[in-house]
Amino acid sequence: MRKRLGILLSGRGSNFEAIARNVIAGVLDAEIAVVISNRESAQGLATARSLGLKAIALPSKGTEREAFDTQLVELLRRHEVDLVVLAGYMRLLSPIFIRAFPQRILNIHPSLLPAFPGLDAQHQAFEYGVKVSGCTVHFVDEQLDNGPILRQAAVPVLPHDTADSLSARILEQEHRVYSEAIRIVLSGRYRIEGRRVVVEES
Amino acid sequence: MRKRLGILLSGRGSNFEAIARNVIAGVLDAEIAVVISNRESAQGLATARSLGLKAIALPSKGTEREAFDTQLVELLRRHEVDLVVLAGYMRLLSPIFIRAFPQRILNIHPSLLPAFPGLDAQHQAFEYGVKVSGCTVHFVDEQLDNGPILRQAAVPVLPHDTADSLSARILEQEHRVYSEAIRIVLSGRYRIEGRRVVVEES
Repeated sequence: MRKRLGILLSGRGSNFEAIARNVIAGVLDAEIAVVISNRESAQGLATARSLGLKAIALPSKGTEREAFDTQLVELLRRHEVDLVVLAGYMRLLSPIFIRAFPQRILNIHPSLLPAFPGLDAQHQAFEYGVKVSGCTVHFVDEQLDNGPILRQAAVPVLPHDTADSLSARILEQEHRVYSEAIRIVLSGRYRIEGRRVVVEES
Repeated sequence: MRKRLGILLSGRGSNFEAIARNVIAGVLDAEIAVVISNRESAQGLATARSLGLKAIALPSKGTEREAFDTQLVELLRRHEVDLVVLAGYMRLLSPIFIRAFPQRILNIHPSLLPAFPGLDAQHQAFEYGVKVSGCTVHFVDEQLDNGPILRQAAVPVLPHDTADSLSARILEQEHRVYSEAIRIVLSGRYRIEGRRVVVEES
């Protein structure tokens, strides 16, 4: 049976869209069971509906974090989700959520972690003056931008770059590596040693 | 007139050797004015002599840091050095030294800074589980592994890597990018904006 993805987003969801297109094209053998946004106005929900996917708004505003995350866990369980994929989900997950899906939550971050965790990673990197940045797909644990790393892609900073042109170049790589990382996790062909993800080659 | 490099090392000096070979091959338009080691037994000194270069041991053991660095500055000035190149120099430089050669000291570090500063960067990166590491050539300022970055090279971490095989792959890139960074500085075709080094294309 195809593994079921639950997507969480808060905005445009361009990484969600790249994953959805890989699923539709048969490049990624999985099913998108549900797309959930904590913001009703998120463009990603409209995209999901236009692709014929189940899209649910679960507004987080005014709800206490643990109570909200409990609802979210229930919703994902009801949709029998095997893997939770964060795609621009702009809310910190509580331990309740993280413990409900141990090593079953992925996130993507627009820098080569552990460099430039937190918000606006591309701008941080640009202002720091690195000549190489990139993106990172990692398991989510209880610390911000910290879990074991599945995939990274390096992206050069070019002489005429602005923070925006760098962000756009990083985004292209995000769209590529997120599906690769999902494929690794769904295949089960990896082990975690310390905090290293060792991918077993087929 | 060819610009004069002063090399500081403490051990094998493989980065020094790569630079020297580029100078000899005419790939790097510069002259190695002097090679100085704070350890008499450093293999890099023997290499320098075998290449017909001036090699000086200035033992640091037992000498107070400021006094030692004052001697070192004098020695480099006597050799009319335009640029100081650290090649495995295992001693922190004092502000006396750094202020004597403002933006005229380069170092190479075996990680993609700002990730994994300090000792054993390759092992730190390996144990952290990054999928991309690399090396960084930067100006030296008064903070460790902190100055503006001239060049970085990304190096993939492969499934069967050990910390040692990763170190070896990073070292190959170090040997390439250090000469590139020296060439940029000697050409003067760059400016520093904030902490970004912007290289002006020819």
